[in-house]
Amino acid sequence: MISIIPVRGLPEIREGDDLAAMVVALQELADGDVLVLAQKVVSKVEGRVIRIDSLEASAHAIELAADERDPREVEAVLREAKRIVRERGSLVIAETTHGFICASAGVDHSNAPEVGMLVLLPVDPDASARRVRDRVRELTGARVGVVVTDSFGRPFRQGTTDVAIGLAGIPPVLDLRGTTDRIGQELRSTRVAIADELAAAADLVRGKAEGVPAVVIRGLQLDGDGSARELVIEPELDLFS
Amino acid sequence: MISIIPVRGLPEIREGDDLAAMVVALQELADGDVLVLAQKVVSKVEGRVIRIDSLEASAHAIELAADERDPREVEAVLREAKRIVRERGSLVIAETTHGFICASAGVDHSNAPEVGMLVLLPVDPDASARRVRDRVRELTGARVGVVVTDSFGRPFRQGTTDVAIGLAGIPPVLDLRGTTDRIGQELRSTRVAIADELAAAADLVRGKAEGVPAVVIRGLQLDGDGSARELVIEPELDLFS
Repeated sequence: MISIIPVRGLPEIREGDDLAAMVVALQELADGDVLVLAQKVVSKVEGRVIRIDSLEASAHAIELAADERDPREVEAVLREAKRIVRERGSLVIAETTHGFICASAGVDHSNAPEVGMLVLLPVDPDASARRVRDRVRELTGARVGVVVTDSFGRPFRQGTTDVAIGLAGIPPVLDLRGTTDRIGQELRSTRVAIADELAAAADLVRGKAEGVPAVVIRGLQLDGDGSARELVIEPELDLFS
Repeated sequence: MISIIPVRGLPEIREGDDLAAMVVALQELADGDVLVLAQKVVSKVEGRVIRIDSLEASAHAIELAADERDPREVEAVLREAKRIVRERGSLVIAETTHGFICASAGVDHSNAPEVGMLVLLPVDPDASARRVRDRVRELTGARVGVVVTDSFGRPFRQGTTDVAIGLAGIPPVLDLRGTTDRIGQELRSTRVAIADELAAAADLVRGKAEGVPAVVIRGLQLDGDGSARELVIEPELDLFS
């Protein structure tokens, strides 16, 4: 059995906060636990927040924004994007500097510290995860996995699911190549995106207004390590897009 | 807290089996539980299994199969497909009759009853879910949700995650439009594909060789109903593809 435990009671997170210490003060962690953190709190700790009025919109941003969106917010999106994948009106699907493809290059005004601010994705979400993992170890002795998540839309299907954008202490993908079923045939799905499944599972307990940024998943034994960037598929291998 | 409980001990499933009765004999179910069933067992109960040697490969199937794959298996894929989305060698991404976009139109030889057989997706996975839900109610009085899942690859990201292809007694999508964060701003992700997140969460306990086709998710209170087909986005609204 697996338990998905919301960590309730975290205060509003500010730059420089010791997030690992705040979590372990509220929830005991044990070896093998996976701590799933919403990107927003990680970004806030790392100061990845900007004031909209500090931005000057470029001609491209003004054109995209039209009358639908603050052109300075679109400017932030363009600055965070390595490549624009799709544009429809003011909606921009972009590849982030990390290689993730998502709406607005991950830039978002919701759950910002104050009105008039935007939250950006962490610069290196794997490094963010490693820092939290190491700090938990230091504070408690527990060897945990850490996943940093965001809510992404996806092709072909409605709605968002939470996915992994950073990780430490767990493998991004379970490789089952060579595993056979009970009649000896190889499985069709031999590479399971376990980090994305952990992210989605954690979202089930977050609650409506994203009031629960930290979630513990207990009961899995996941060996391995890696980077959430391994979840990005090279375009030439991507059969689906 | 949410619990994800594997239902261990199910025998090999055959056509006509009373799957709901087999599950409730092994695992007590209560109001609000969500029973997540791998598509394979649902298809087997419904007789959605064919012998490869009953198929005659068309010219198109022979061409696609080349020397990489049994052309009769490719023939089964073509028959299950409403539309071919991508072809690369013998790999086919197809839109199923239900509207889902996945590898091989959901046709698979792994976990078939015997070598030489293929398992197809249920004809109407929502109806399959409703039948199991109603039968659980009849047997136990419990009002449960049911999700039928399959492992799908997806664009942009490596690996598969389990998604919902049929459901009953839960909503496919949580609509949070109008919900605000603690500073009063609307959330960016206002439509959460909750059925897909339940599917992904259940996959965490399935184990490597898909030996656990039934999983119970306990501790959520999900009101509503609908169809997994609501998870399919109309191409003209699909910003991502």
